[in-house]
Amino acid sequence: MPKISVKGNSMPESPIRKLVPFAEKAVKNGKKIYLLNIGQPDIKSPAAAMDAVRNHDIEVLSYSHSAGFEGYRKKLADYYNKTAIPVTSEEIIITTGGSEALLFAMGSIADTGDEIIIPEPFYANYNGFATASGVKIVPVESKIETNFALPPISEFEKLITPKTKAILICNPGNPTGYLYTKEEIQQLAEIAIKHDIFVVADEVYREFAYDGAKHYSIMSIPGMEQHAIMIDSVSKRYSMCGARIGCLVSKNKEVINTAMKFAQARLSPPTFEQIASEAALDTPQSYFDDVIKEYTSRRNLLISGLEEIEGVKVAVPKGAFYCIAELPVTNADDFAKWLLEDYQLNNETIMVAPAAGFYSTPNTGLNQVRIAYVLKKEDLEKAINILKEALIAYNK
Amino acid sequence: MPKISVKGNSMPESPIRKLVPFAEKAVKNGKKIYLLNIGQPDIKSPAAAMDAVRNHDIEVLSYSHSAGFEGYRKKLADYYNKTAIPVTSEEIIITTGGSEALLFAMGSIADTGDEIIIPEPFYANYNGFATASGVKIVPVESKIETNFALPPISEFEKLITPKTKAILICNPGNPTGYLYTKEEIQQLAEIAIKHDIFVVADEVYREFAYDGAKHYSIMSIPGMEQHAIMIDSVSKRYSMCGARIGCLVSKNKEVINTAMKFAQARLSPPTFEQIASEAALDTPQSYFDDVIKEYTSRRNLLISGLEEIEGVKVAVPKGAFYCIAELPVTNADDFAKWLLEDYQLNNETIMVAPAAGFYSTPNTGLNQVRIAYVLKKEDLEKAINILKEALIAYNK
Repeated sequence: MPKISVKGNSMPESPIRKLVPFAEKAVKNGKKIYLLNIGQPDIKSPAAAMDAVRNHDIEVLSYSHSAGFEGYRKKLADYYNKTAIPVTSEEIIITTGGSEALLFAMGSIADTGDEIIIPEPFYANYNGFATASGVKIVPVESKIETNFALPPISEFEKLITPKTKAILICNPGNPTGYLYTKEEIQQLAEIAIKHDIFVVADEVYREFAYDGAKHYSIMSIPGMEQHAIMIDSVSKRYSMCGARIGCLVSKNKEVINTAMKFAQARLSPPTFEQIASEAALDTPQSYFDDVIKEYTSRRNLLISGLEEIEGVKVAVPKGAFYCIAELPVTNADDFAKWLLEDYQLNNETIMVAPAAGFYSTPNTGLNQVRIAYVLKKEDLEKAINILKEALIAYNK
Repeated sequence: MPKISVKGNSMPESPIRKLVPFAEKAVKNGKKIYLLNIGQPDIKSPAAAMDAVRNHDIEVLSYSHSAGFEGYRKKLADYYNKTAIPVTSEEIIITTGGSEALLFAMGSIADTGDEIIIPEPFYANYNGFATASGVKIVPVESKIETNFALPPISEFEKLITPKTKAILICNPGNPTGYLYTKEEIQQLAEIAIKHDIFVVADEVYREFAYDGAKHYSIMSIPGMEQHAIMIDSVSKRYSMCGARIGCLVSKNKEVINTAMKFAQARLSPPTFEQIASEAALDTPQSYFDDVIKEYTSRRNLLISGLEEIEGVKVAVPKGAFYCIAELPVTNADDFAKWLLEDYQLNNETIMVAPAAGFYSTPNTGLNQVRIAYVLKKEDLEKAINILKEALIAYNK
């Protein structure tokens, strides 16, 4: 039998999705599962976006521009300009999800064996994209005790080698919910300029900043024009995860020209979802105000609920809609499986994402899980109660 | 300024799309261009597919399964079973275009520096996917004189090394239009089994076989279960290029499990286009009969037209909707640019794809172009006439 590649064998399983077969089995057996494992909001997608697709008049579903609809890119540039990010439509490439934007970015700036430094824990699929791209992730530790703040500059500088091509951040952070301050973003910019490397900023949760905090984009820092690459997506902003529409943004012309070659090879992003995404840009501010209000109260409910459970330690998220919780278990992976296979409270259980997959340092985060607060409050309350009771049962 | 990767610099420009800026300029200057460069059919997408999207009732546009809708995969398996390809829904992964299926296949079976043998000329973007994946393409020459038939087995065997992981074919061929016979497919299978390598068969044009010829799939050859990987797409079959829905099909469980890890990292294929693609499977046979009839007459018109132009040599395509034509010019790239920038006949011109980009051997196919016959006959006639007059003018 012909062999699978070393790369293929090294591809990590998604910690967000790998428990799906266990969940499917549990559902077949009649159990109800509260999904805390995946960042799939229950919030309605903007009606204008869904209507735009309903009202399409396409007769021949043709390829679009490899960089995406020009009209969409222009409107998107306007959107960014309003948030103090000065870009033009020529500095934006529409991609098939933030995922593809990350692949284009890694391919454009790093060769096999090159290194990208990422504060850990990080979005688990960075591991997959790095493996697919032949890139080595060099983690720098951020800690639950400090709410996962940016590690000190000295820690980054210790890790920089001639193979270091970029620092990759997720801001606000998935899975930590940490929102970097202006000072932290400026510090990152200084390292990047000093060592002549890129900062790739995954800002797909940019609108989800709570308690009046402000999001600072790497793109808004003067002097970073040639160093900054922003990754964005409509998935979370408009609760349109199934659209698979994202973008890569940079003022560095070489980066855009190179990423365009990757974009041209795959021809174009999907058409209907571009129609939806372009229409979504007309979503009124009130939609976001409502969404932020809802997430803030869900977060408050979740965090206070978790803090009340004995042995649980949790970092308070300032953005996005996740938190990392440390549980009184030795192996959260086993616990997560057990929750699906062996546990039920009134025939209900929960699904969580074991956090080890969000680290690249081996044997780290073994007793942590990522919890997404994307469920309505009454479900979230039930889910917290299940976790509480399950921990008692598990530790007996 | 931080540096672009060697990989990024090595990414080839798409020969199908690289002349687009020249075309855009010509259009701005009021010139009409007949597009012979790109396989974008003018045929209407099936009404049932477009209606299914119009009638969607989605309120939350959620992630779908990483392997694509289960219902769609089941219907797709039925479709293949009808064409003598015995597969189940578990042996299919829905991808974002055939492009992504090719990337998943290359990533799953080949590491950096590994080799894939491809009969040349081949679909230009294989160069891009190979570069992105770190894979080395080893071309084996097929010739215009023999209509681009499969090169002799001995030519393949000369090229096989310990680094050879697969033979990749496109059947029917883009850009050649060549349809492999049952004997040729069997010969490929024998090499693959003998040398324990994969055959990756890009069969996106499978329905486009003319003159009563039959398409033979690599998946229908007994004994190839562990060796065959099929790439497919709805783009051409249903004239839905903008959908970006394809699939990877294999009976080799290791291949499917590995490709699934790549699929999970990018979460899911786009939702609306899966709805369209699933509905398209109900398209009646009469749609295809009409389409095949139309393409056959377009092909006949194009080939006889080209054969009448002095100095033009052309291979007669038996499938797909392209042909490779040798022109009486030294450099088809220069000629293609000249057509857009400097030439017009009654304020009209044509756009062709220079064929050098469809070869990986340097300085090959320099006097060839790929012509797609995706325009209605009256436009195709005008386009052929423009080519004829342009060649006279260019060679003066």
